[in-house]
Amino acid sequence: MNREELFGNIMKKRSYLCVGLDSDITKIPRHLMQHEDPVFEFNRRIIDATAPYAVAFKPNLAFYECNGAAGWASLSATIAYLRENHPDCFIIADAKRGDIGNTSAMYAQALFKGLGADAVTVAPYMGEDSVSPFLGYEGRWVALLALTSNRGADDFQYHTEGGERLFEKVLRQSKGWGTEENMMYVVGATRAEMLADVRKIVPLHFLLVPGIGAQGGSLREVSSYGMNEKCGLLVNSSRAIIFADGGDRFDKVAADKAAEVQSEMSRYLP
Amino acid sequence: MNREELFGNIMKKRSYLCVGLDSDITKIPRHLMQHEDPVFEFNRRIIDATAPYAVAFKPNLAFYECNGAAGWASLSATIAYLRENHPDCFIIADAKRGDIGNTSAMYAQALFKGLGADAVTVAPYMGEDSVSPFLGYEGRWVALLALTSNRGADDFQYHTEGGERLFEKVLRQSKGWGTEENMMYVVGATRAEMLADVRKIVPLHFLLVPGIGAQGGSLREVSSYGMNEKCGLLVNSSRAIIFADGGDRFDKVAADKAAEVQSEMSRYLP
Repeated sequence: MNREELFGNIMKKRSYLCVGLDSDITKIPRHLMQHEDPVFEFNRRIIDATAPYAVAFKPNLAFYECNGAAGWASLSATIAYLRENHPDCFIIADAKRGDIGNTSAMYAQALFKGLGADAVTVAPYMGEDSVSPFLGYEGRWVALLALTSNRGADDFQYHTEGGERLFEKVLRQSKGWGTEENMMYVVGATRAEMLADVRKIVPLHFLLVPGIGAQGGSLREVSSYGMNEKCGLLVNSSRAIIFADGGDRFDKVAADKAAEVQSEMSRYLP
Repeated sequence: MNREELFGNIMKKRSYLCVGLDSDITKIPRHLMQHEDPVFEFNRRIIDATAPYAVAFKPNLAFYECNGAAGWASLSATIAYLRENHPDCFIIADAKRGDIGNTSAMYAQALFKGLGADAVTVAPYMGEDSVSPFLGYEGRWVALLALTSNRGADDFQYHTEGGERLFEKVLRQSKGWGTEENMMYVVGATRAEMLADVRKIVPLHFLLVPGIGAQGGSLREVSSYGMNEKCGLLVNSSRAIIFADGGDRFDKVAADKAAEVQSEMSRYLP
């Protein structure tokens, strides 16, 4: 999906919500365990219920890998289901990959060709040749970690040389590796005021913003500091939506939660 | 496997070789394609042939993920085979993972409990809470990226604040997160002279050193700059061993290559 199509879907749905599919098999409603693939069944119902309010879905690969080969099958089925039934939804494989060139090339193949994701989250530590193999796929994206939402972001991301913090260097240097058509950046909502600094370096790129909901970030602040004229934001919420209710009506409750966020987002969009 | 056992195996085999299982299905000998799981069959033969000369094996997850759920099954079978038939070999899941705490905890579960690896490679960008969930498993290890072997290492790993380069900060700060019993560091062989600087900060830790063989690093230099009194080195070679020959005798040729490396290593060990 290209940038213009993504922006079109945002304006059509009046939403820049990304629903995170951190579908922990130990947390999904117990009555789903009778299904052959309980995680897929959970995802399918969450997706159908929340898709009217969301422009993107972000499966978090850790929650599939922990189920081994069966988990990989659930993930693959989830993405195939999205592609077929909700082709207007952007799919982000939250994988935090990144390795030497020949290995990143295999990850890109696994996640873009194999799974069919639109975007992959990538860690920047290993530099350009660890990222560029993900940039060779038409209409596919890298979401590069810049400033993350967790406490540990303080450990290295603010390391400063000549007034430039590491996350700023990552933004400045990496924006030359691709374009705003194939790169976006991960910037945590828990540091909303930093979005103003981020926007000085990458005014046009989309930002993937985790950390509202369970992690406590503010949607209003994120939107105020981070939005650009093509919206430029995908704001993720995972647990606060998908695990809002653990009973029979889990999908309806998830839809209500997603609708609340969408309604707030609608007010911030032009 | 603990540090003393690892050192014991190194002295017993007179080797600190790690064989990288970058088992690209498009590069394995064609006659293996008749097997139900060609990648596992390739690994099994490589492992049996090279285990007399190697103390560790390092499957590179990208080369399994690109085959989807079947690839994950090949990986799982490979690690189970190692555990059962070569219990004195240290198993490193080369995964370059790292995410917020609850997600890293799931990756740790997937790779330690699910797959049964002894160690996992982890990227440091997201800081302590992205790494510490991997440190809660008795006898299991994190191999944290410090200074990598690729060209892109120059992009961010030398970012310098107050005279301290980022990779040095990663070493200094992270060594307080665990101990030399559960943390090792990835330092590329292509920067062997930097190993002296690394050893100033982490004199006792094991270093996992990729980059000899296909990437061109020198085993002599790595050993000269990096070895400590408990050896403290695991030196990886992947393609130069496992793809040394593409015919019927691929495993014998791989064994010859591994034996050459082991013979050189034997001279450097006390």
